[in-house]
Amino acid sequence: MRMGEGVEWALHSCLNLAWAQDGGAVTVARLAAYHDLPAAYLNKQLQALSRAGIVTSVPGPRGGFRLARRPEDVTLMDVVTAIEGPEQAFRCTEIRQQGPHGEMPGNSRRPCAISAAMRRAELAWRRELAARTLADVMSEAERGAPGVPGRVRGWFATASA
Amino acid sequence: MRMGEGVEWALHSCLNLAWAQDGGAVTVARLAAYHDLPAAYLNKQLQALSRAGIVTSVPGPRGGFRLARRPEDVTLMDVVTAIEGPEQAFRCTEIRQQGPHGEMPGNSRRPCAISAAMRRAELAWRRELAARTLADVMSEAERGAPGVPGRVRGWFATASA
Repeated sequence: MRMGEGVEWALHSCLNLAWAQDGGAVTVARLAAYHDLPAAYLNKQLQALSRAGIVTSVPGPRGGFRLARRPEDVTLMDVVTAIEGPEQAFRCTEIRQQGPHGEMPGNSRRPCAISAAMRRAELAWRRELAARTLADVMSEAERGAPGVPGRVRGWFATASA
Repeated sequence: MRMGEGVEWALHSCLNLAWAQDGGAVTVARLAAYHDLPAAYLNKQLQALSRAGIVTSVPGPRGGFRLARRPEDVTLMDVVTAIEGPEQAFRCTEIRQQGPHGEMPGNSRRPCAISAAMRRAELAWRRELAARTLADVMSEAERGAPGVPGRVRGWFATASA
């Protein structure tokens, strides 16, 4: 069970957009260059973030992407769902309905204990992701490396000049 | 991010093995027939469970599989790890080390705030799975359908005759 690498790319790009925000919209090419990523594939992740209302595409010669919401208003769950989709990780295909005892009366209405336990665990994961915003992660990153916001902003300002 | 269907199959098969246990080892063909699953593919999951020490293969004409440990001693995490592997779902490929600011001194030693937040969420999921045993799920299933253990045991006893 693995997430696509797009989740890491999207999260770092959201943080970079937040730090670079004052400088205006950022092109995919510049966002990609900052972490040496393939621009075409990063563009896919940005389109997914755009569909989820996390980033906005700004048209025009100084256009590009910017965060659509404040970093306080975007959770890690929002970003993960935008990239990976809303599906549960555990697939319950109701195999208990199949086979010699599958047609037992009431079986379909009674929740499956396995499925319920797996969903509870996944809910714990989702709750953690939903409780943490981009702003929280930015604060933590800045505590470890206070120079990061200025460095990111500076680089994007120069690169866009 | 989806688990393979093998996780559902493995969990149900472990419960069926536990309920059928008194009747001795159960063949893959019988385990598969109980939920109308392809035996060859279910066999792969049972081999994985066997490598993880969750089930034991019993040789001989009355052979098959049985649980290697008591249901109290097998957690959902054990089964998920046996089937899906121990890798984290979130892939951190350290893209922050790439690009114009990637070589920043100390960057590699400072934990990435994104990676740390994603790991914390995954830990919450793992903790939930590790806190729940097959015995817990069996109790829950039996509360909803008290006839299940007898029905499973009876079917496997008949089918093996």
